[in-house]
Amino acid sequence: MNWQAVSVATKNEAIETVADILLQVGAQGVQINDHDAISVTAYYPDDEQLGETITAIQKALKHLSDIGMSVAPATITVNGIQQKDWEDNWKAYYHAERVTRHFTVVPSWETYHPNQIDELPIIMDPKLAFGTGTHETTRLMIQALENVVRGGESMIDVGTGSGVLAVAAKQLGVAHVLATDIDEMSVNVAKENLRLNPVAQDVTVVASDLLADVVISPVDLIVANILADVIERLIPQTTTLLKPGGLFLVSGIYDNIALHIEDVLRANDYTIVQKSQMGEWHGYIAQLKEKN
Amino acid sequence: MNWQAVSVATKNEAIETVADILLQVGAQGVQINDHDAISVTAYYPDDEQLGETITAIQKALKHLSDIGMSVAPATITVNGIQQKDWEDNWKAYYHAERVTRHFTVVPSWETYHPNQIDELPIIMDPKLAFGTGTHETTRLMIQALENVVRGGESMIDVGTGSGVLAVAAKQLGVAHVLATDIDEMSVNVAKENLRLNPVAQDVTVVASDLLADVVISPVDLIVANILADVIERLIPQTTTLLKPGGLFLVSGIYDNIALHIEDVLRANDYTIVQKSQMGEWHGYIAQLKEKN
Repeated sequence: MNWQAVSVATKNEAIETVADILLQVGAQGVQINDHDAISVTAYYPDDEQLGETITAIQKALKHLSDIGMSVAPATITVNGIQQKDWEDNWKAYYHAERVTRHFTVVPSWETYHPNQIDELPIIMDPKLAFGTGTHETTRLMIQALENVVRGGESMIDVGTGSGVLAVAAKQLGVAHVLATDIDEMSVNVAKENLRLNPVAQDVTVVASDLLADVVISPVDLIVANILADVIERLIPQTTTLLKPGGLFLVSGIYDNIALHIEDVLRANDYTIVQKSQMGEWHGYIAQLKEKN
Repeated sequence: MNWQAVSVATKNEAIETVADILLQVGAQGVQINDHDAISVTAYYPDDEQLGETITAIQKALKHLSDIGMSVAPATITVNGIQQKDWEDNWKAYYHAERVTRHFTVVPSWETYHPNQIDELPIIMDPKLAFGTGTHETTRLMIQALENVVRGGESMIDVGTGSGVLAVAAKQLGVAHVLATDIDEMSVNVAKENLRLNPVAQDVTVVASDLLADVVISPVDLIVANILADVIERLIPQTTTLLKPGGLFLVSGIYDNIALHIEDVLRANDYTIVQKSQMGEWHGYIAQLKEKN
């Protein structure tokens, strides 16, 4: 495996904070250079995730600056090359990636030549605000869809984000997809991404706080790849929008909260049909009980 | 859900034993009729699994009789109809079943009309000695193959049984499959099943005690869906037949032994990439460490 050295220039009193950021996005350790120009360096695998990692570091640094914590100059260098043009250059780090045997996430600007003729493309323009569709939780959700879809279903995608799951579902033959996100801005980004995928032209996207503003007949499937604390609030909302015996596919659940989420599912008339884990991330396929 | 009443006629002193059998194959409870003709009744879902359940009951009853425990008359009735011709009639209970979005297990005598044009058939003649290819552990293994195969791989299928995983792998684009089973009789049954699948004509099947008699260059993938106590013995054998960084897909692991198998995997230079669980059954995708 090859590694890339990612350094953040900062000031003495911010060293610990910057080190925390580099560790949180996946470094095994950091190297603190506190003489001359102060900087913190960490090493990350030189793979498809690197672009996302650097974007995450940049966002965290910007967040600190937004809330008034000075970490200046906060410039990022990768292998000694300053990333001042990161917002123009980050696309170089994103390439098509096969996430399962059948699904390949393809950046919208890339001409992708499939290795196997029956690969199903998911075309994404991973704006800085979103991931690339290749995170563990996304993989768990795409796998879950491949396990349960049989064609012709109705589905709600809660917190659709980039729309990656809505596209995957349509590729698999789900008939009707309603996707939600929290506000109009997120809805517009999702719509832009969906437009890149011919198969997903009939997906409806609406702004809704989880399922609060969704008023439709119960569906066969609800999918949600969102933060675990939001999932806890979401679960009771799903039971009236899912047909009896319908399936709830959920991920975004970190190790420390997984057992609690299982309890909440069971307390809301769900049976856990399958659980799956990649790294510290958990995904569930849960079935709502049949009508009594 | 509809239910079928499966009753076993027996004698007083065997009631508990027969009840245990009915519970072990998945009944939630049993109903004991100990007046007039003594029998034990349990209710099972009227679905694709029913044929397999009845076969399992019949085999367990035969096993008891083989070891000298009298449970006579041990006749099985389903909804009041005696199954004395079970060996001729069991085929009526097996029908094509979609095990994932892409894979459908099709009995060899059935003309199957796919619901979606890109379904991948796995054609099986489920002899009484084997399952139908729809058991949880088989599903976990097929899912794992769909997660990791990218086309062109070399693979060993340890304890191939019906050959279901060898066929699935070939359908997904694995290039070279060597399948093993314990003795020549099992090898011949596997070969018969493989012959039903045009895509699997080039699969080689050899008799081997696990991998003891396999002498080939290291492969990209090893898959094994066998009993957990055998898996423990198998794991150390895999490491010399798998390329560095290669993947070992394994299931057949019941809840009570799963953590132990994880330890054995780690002790043999494997990293667990993904774990998955359906009911009480566990499956793993483990990666052999890269060369130092």
